[in-house]
Amino acid sequence: MARFFIAASNIVGGVAYLDSKAMDHIKVLRIRNGETFTVCDGSGTDYECRLADTQGANGVAQVLSCAPSGAEPSVKVTVFAAWPKGDKAELIVQKCVELGAGEIVFFPSSRCVVKVDAAGAQKKVMRLGRIAEEAAKQSGRGVIPAVTAAGSFTDAVKAACGHDCALFLYEDEKTLGLRTVLEENGEAKSFALMTGPEGGFSPEEADAAAKAGMRSTVMGPRILRCETAPICALTAVMLMSGNMQEGK
Amino acid sequence: MARFFIAASNIVGGVAYLDSKAMDHIKVLRIRNGETFTVCDGSGTDYECRLADTQGANGVAQVLSCAPSGAEPSVKVTVFAAWPKGDKAELIVQKCVELGAGEIVFFPSSRCVVKVDAAGAQKKVMRLGRIAEEAAKQSGRGVIPAVTAAGSFTDAVKAACGHDCALFLYEDEKTLGLRTVLEENGEAKSFALMTGPEGGFSPEEADAAAKAGMRSTVMGPRILRCETAPICALTAVMLMSGNMQEGK
Repeated sequence: MARFFIAASNIVGGVAYLDSKAMDHIKVLRIRNGETFTVCDGSGTDYECRLADTQGANGVAQVLSCAPSGAEPSVKVTVFAAWPKGDKAELIVQKCVELGAGEIVFFPSSRCVVKVDAAGAQKKVMRLGRIAEEAAKQSGRGVIPAVTAAGSFTDAVKAACGHDCALFLYEDEKTLGLRTVLEENGEAKSFALMTGPEGGFSPEEADAAAKAGMRSTVMGPRILRCETAPICALTAVMLMSGNMQEGK
Repeated sequence: MARFFIAASNIVGGVAYLDSKAMDHIKVLRIRNGETFTVCDGSGTDYECRLADTQGANGVAQVLSCAPSGAEPSVKVTVFAAWPKGDKAELIVQKCVELGAGEIVFFPSSRCVVKVDAAGAQKKVMRLGRIAEEAAKQSGRGVIPAVTAAGSFTDAVKAACGHDCALFLYEDEKTLGLRTVLEENGEAKSFALMTGPEGGFSPEEADAAAKAGMRSTVMGPRILRCETAPICALTAVMLMSGNMQEGK
């Protein structure tokens, strides 16, 4: 069934008020009065609706039923990715939204190839937010994951440490493997996954993350590109937490 | 340490004969006579070498030691991906090589958006083979995974069934989740992972794969894009088979 996101404030008293963006989508799909579709409030609730009125740029639909979105995972995973170069940030956002991330935070790191200042970060996260919305729609998510920018590596580590399990994915880690750490954290409800830039994290950053309480974790002997690492780590968390077991 | 692939037949009696491609790479990296680097024979053996002579387009290096490549996984995974549109095949190859695939096979499927004939497939796999080589070098693999094209869906299913565990990743599968099937196949040494095109597999294809002996498996309630599904499934196999536990 077709799915659109509209603001929760536009779903009032059994009626969904469709904004011009949702109406554009409805017109493209040639949905007519009396036909049904799904409206998501972006907070994890899906509403089955019947189109009632399409006059003008906006429209009105009757809410038939509502239920928690079946596609939202049982764990909240925040992906912290160092700013990559080129269009890799888009790939990270698109794939991580598909795979069930709760939020995606980009941050500066000492070996980042691109230097992103505050204004640049603001512009980038605006654009990446639209990619997150598209990916959320396409993959059937009930939430549009937020895409934000941390001002510094230290800020990102601090935010990561607020999760039940905060992993620092580090290719120079010698002992702790991803599967082991996920098995040890079977009861965790929130995860932070922090991955580095093209040149990897510096030893100083690894030390700072460990001192702040993050677990340094390796993902095997193969060197993963900076855009592959978050996709890989997120898949592992979803698999081990039982969030890749059932169909839609 | 720098890594190059050269043909196994060029490593003879303690000497590695470097072809012009390897020499180009050596020149770019400004490696000088007496300095060391790693040569891979593409069959899973790494040779530590010392550059001995760089006169002319070719060069000669002395083999100091050799050992099995530490980056090769303990399981052989063949990824069978339906031909996708655009440049998604490149993304699939690059990411699957990084993540440890043994071989990547593209095949036609009833809902493929692009129709690839035999000549087109030949041309595409040539180009994709070069991407596999680049990704193998960059990720530190000891083998360059082959990229091939199956002539038909039926041929691909037949080839998949030759593996210890042959999974048909199907979004309409209702009961069997990826983690469960991988736990049940903890002893498998070879895996086939078959994923569909943009429009998904047809019910007839799902039936044919099941009849041939493949296990229909779902990867959770979120709809994955056709290029995300093989990356996700491969990560899960590597994680569950213990191939993401140790560093390099």
